Order: sequence, then C-alpha cells, then structure tokens
Amino acid sequence: MKFEVTILGSSSATPIFNRNPTSQALNVNERLYLIDCGEGTQQQMLRFDIKSSRIDHIFISHLHGDHYLGLIGLLSSMHLNGRKKALQLFGPTHLKEIIDIQLKYSETTLQFPLEFVATNAQKAEVIVNNNDIIVETIPLDHRIECCGFIFREKKRLRKLIKEKLEELNIPVEYYTALKRGSDYTSANGVVYKNETLTVDSNVPKAYAYCSDTIYNEQYFNQISNVTLLYHEATFLNDMLDRAKETHHTTALQAAQIALKTNAKRLLIGHFSARYKTLNELLDEARSVFPLTELAIEGKTFNIE
Amino acid sequence: MKFEVTILGSSSATPIFNRNPTSQALNVNERLYLIDCGEGTQQQMLRFDIKSSRIDHIFISHLHGDHYLGLIGLLSSMHLNGRKKALQLFGPTHLKEIIDIQLKYSETTLQFPLEFVATNAQKAEVIVNNNDIIVETIPLDHRIECCGFIFREKKRLRKLIKEKLEELNIPVEYYTALKRGSDYTSANGVVYKNETLTVDSNVPKAYAYCSDTIYNEQYFNQISNVTLLYHEATFLNDMLDRAKETHHTTALQAAQIALKTNAKRLLIGHFSARYKTLNELLDEARSVFPLTELAIEGKTFNIE
Repeated sequence: MKFEVTILGSSSATPIFNRNPTSQALNVNERLYLIDCGEGTQQQMLRFDIKSSRIDHIFISHLHGDHYLGLIGLLSSMHLNGRKKALQLFGPTHLKEIIDIQLKYSETTLQFPLEFVATNAQKAEVIVNNNDIIVETIPLDHRIECCGFIFREKKRLRKLIKEKLEELNIPVEYYTALKRGSDYTSANGVVYKNETLTVDSNVPKAYAYCSDTIYNEQYFNQISNVTLLYHEATFLNDMLDRAKETHHTTALQAAQIALKTNAKRLLIGHFSARYKTLNELLDEARSVFPLTELAIEGKTFNIE
Repeated sequence: MKFEVTILGSSSATPIFNRNPTSQALNVNERLYLIDCGEGTQQQMLRFDIKSSRIDHIFISHLHGDHYLGLIGLLSSMHLNGRKKALQLFGPTHLKEIIDIQLKYSETTLQFPLEFVATNAQKAEVIVNNNDIIVETIPLDHRIECCGFIFREKKRLRKLIKEKLEELNIPVEYYTALKRGSDYTSANGVVYKNETLTVDSNVPKAYAYCSDTIYNEQYFNQISNVTLLYHEATFLNDMLDRAKETHHTTALQAAQIALKTNAKRLLIGHFSARYKTLNELLDEARSVFPLTELAIEGKTFNIE
C-alpha cells in the first residue's frame, strides 16, 4: 500500500522567495490527505501535479495564516471545477466561521458537501478511521490552540504460509478465517494452530506531523516509534530563546525529540525566512539524529 | 513623475499553472498603490522585487477570492516585518469583517494602523486626493458589488519659458506666482501676460482599472480619454454567452470599450484558465483596438 508524503510548502509565516508556507499531501493507498494549506497551496499542487479531486480529507493544525490561508481558495477552486463529492475538513472550531463568512460575502454556495469536524486541542482524539488508516490529533503547545496529526496504517490481516496450506490441502474457503487468526481443524480432527499456518503482517507504519509547537514532552508518548516524524524546526539552536518566545522548536530540539521518541526517520520543516539556505539546519539536526531530511518542496518521502 | 503599473497576477478565479490571480502595483512618483490582491500576491511581490514597505494604499475591487485572498497574508507579513506606518485600505464594507475575524482567531494585533475606507458600489467617489494623484471609484456591473478605480495625476503647475524670463530679467522670487498663472508687471509698469511667459503643463495622465464587469455603458463616461485602460477580458468573444452569464467581458468587448471611450492604450487581463496561451485574446482585441497589450505577470507598463 502506498504511504508517502509530498511537501508542498515548508516556510514559516514570513514569506520568502522560493519557499511556500506549510502544506503537505499524504498519499495513503492513492487517496490524498492534505495537511495544512498555507497561501499558494493550490498553485503548488498544480506545480507538483497533485490532483485536488483525489483529496477527500483536509487537516488544518491551527489558525495562523501560514497554515490555512490557502484553504478558502482551494475550496472555491474545487467548487468552480465542478466537485460534487463530499470533503471532510478537520480544524479548530473557528475555522468554520472564517470559511462561512468568506463564502457568504462572495455569494458562493459550494456545490459539494463540506463536512467540518472541529478538533480539540485539549485531548488526543481519533478523527478518521477507514479501511486504510486511523488519524488521531496530537495536542501541541503553541501560542494559540494547535493540533498535530498522526496517521497510522490499519493493522493488516495475517499472511498465509501458502506452501503449508497446500501441503495440508486446506480448502480455500478457510483462508479468510485463517487470515483473521483462527486455528484449523482438519476432517480427521487434528487441530493446527494459526501461528503454524500464518505469519503476522508487517508492523503498521505511522506518520506523525508536529507543527507548530514549543519543545514539550506532553506529546512524546503519543508519537513514539513512528516510521517518519515530521517536526517543525523553525530556528537553529542559537536562537533557542526566540524559539521559546514564539513557541517554536529548533532543529536540534527536533532531532532530540526524534531520538527520545524512537522515530525511524525525521523530516524537518517550517523554516524561518532568515535562513536563505537550509544546510545548517540539516547539519544541526543530523548531529543528534543522523536519519534526518529537509522538507524540500516537491520532494516525496516514502513512509517505510 | 513616474507613473507605471506592474502586473503581479492576471488570471481569473480558477487557478492555472504559471498565472496568478489578479493584482497590480501602480507606481506613482515612487509610492506604490496596490490594486487587488489575489492569493499569492506577496510571493509575486518577492519575485518581481515590489517592496511592501513602499505601499501605503491598497484597493480591493470586490470580494471574489481571486481579487483579495492574498490580502490577509500580506497584512500579516507587513506586521511580522515590523511595519509601523499607517496603511489605507479601500474595499467593500464586509472586507473589514473578514480581516478582523482572521486577525482575531490568530490572536494578531497589527502593529501598524490599518485605516479602512469602505467603497460604495452605487456611486463614483473620490477616495484619495494627495499631492500626486486623485483616485476615484468606478462602479462596475458584476455578480456582486464591485468597484474599479481610476487614478488621475494631479494637474501640474505651468512650465516657465526660462529664456524669456531671463531676457526680461524677471526676479526669481516671481517664478512661483508665474507657475500658478499670474501675469508679470515690470518695474516700469509693463504687463506681461502669463501665457507669454509660461506654457501649460502636460495633460494629466490617467489609469483606469476595470475588473470585474459585464459590458455596461454606465461607466464609459467616467473612463473616457484615459492614457491607459486596464479592462478585464476573461473570454474570447465566441464565449459571449458565458461572459454575460458570469458578468464578465470578452476581449472583443474590452477593445470596443477602449475605442468608444477613446483610451490611448488598452491592457487586457483576468484571463480564464481555459486559455493556456493568450495570443488569441490579444489578436481578437487588436482587431478592433490595435494598441492593446496583454497584462503579463512581471511586465511594467508606462502610463504616458
């Protein structure tokens, strides 16, 4: 099953030429989950061939402009392009009000159902649970209410040991029950334990998205052992005071978080406009957590 | 005096790769007047080196997203970049409400005075009158309330005929009065009429911005004889029915308007995303009004 994330924007609030504010498109089994939607996201989608028709879920972490100002334009374009199927939108309560007022004064009635679900920044909640994935909010610690999101693959059924099943002549109609963990009893009453006929499926992969937040251990437990951790790294650690003051994280701290939470790999982003190039941020993070990458726009990262 | 307009965006609502929604920066004597502010305008400003610190006036024609969704991001960035001086914002009444709600929920208090002036789409009004320029609204005919804007240079003082003044030994302290139109009486009582000592200054130049509107003669009188007319030309004329239905203009109509109102030159923009290239729109307009140009992003047009 495809499980990968494409970076559409990775800058923080102040604009900088050649970097766009935050947005990511997560591809799970060919369905797209859009995470944050800074200004210009729809232009970035055109640029990187991300089809909005494949998006059925949008997640907005918080109401700072660099994380949501592209949303109303994207919704309008979906409408103008004839979208009819429902779209689920997850975000802070007041996001709905902001959208509604803009639709009202442009006299736009969306031609598709927009199903808004308010997130709660006080406690982690499962907000999506479908055949492919479970999505849970991650309450973060920012200047205003803010949630990250964790996307966990559904645990797959057990895998059949085909040769064993053929050797024992087990009829095909038993296979589904075996995948679900049942034992097999043959015609002559011999019981074969499930674990001799099947093996466990792969450990479900997980992607955690943590932006924006100050370093705060409150969410570490929730993001432990993820396959890929995206963490904001707005500043270099020589600006730790500024990071604290603005409730952001440094590249060094992001790496420490990856280490402490036992992430497999780390992706850093939400770079301050003061950094024209990003090598120093990468080097700083890699000094603590070598398997770090930069969230460069247009790059796709497999979550595996 | 510098009087020129730089195109920052020229697409209509549906996004298209490589064209941004509507915005223009008008440079009048090195002060910038921003006209409309579609999503991504601040990125375009970075791209074309348009400094937001030089903008003291922003004009929003109407509340369709492709004309204003970049505004809140731009205001936030001005704030983050430490702007202190006042900014005048002109637009439909409800624009203020849309800005306020977004500032409120991002817990942002702008560190500069934002002076909002509501435009009235029912009647033309002078909304700016300073040393350089007079700006007047142009009530247009669109699906929702919409105003264009006309920017007229202030009439300059008369120009002195230097050789004549020196020949007559007219003292320098009389020059200002002469520029203002006074006659000159010499020490021995001879009266020299002003028109023998000065010449009229150039005819004040004017730039009219007309977007979005259906073809409607109601505003033709107001825009007559402008130096440069920007007019929306969303469609080719083979889509006249669609233009009427959506309250837009075709390239042919824009050219007819330039002809009827005796514009010196015509600039067309607000192109539908269906036109990947723009030559046909240009050819259609030029068939009626040869001095037509396309509002190509990054291009600057002298108003002269």
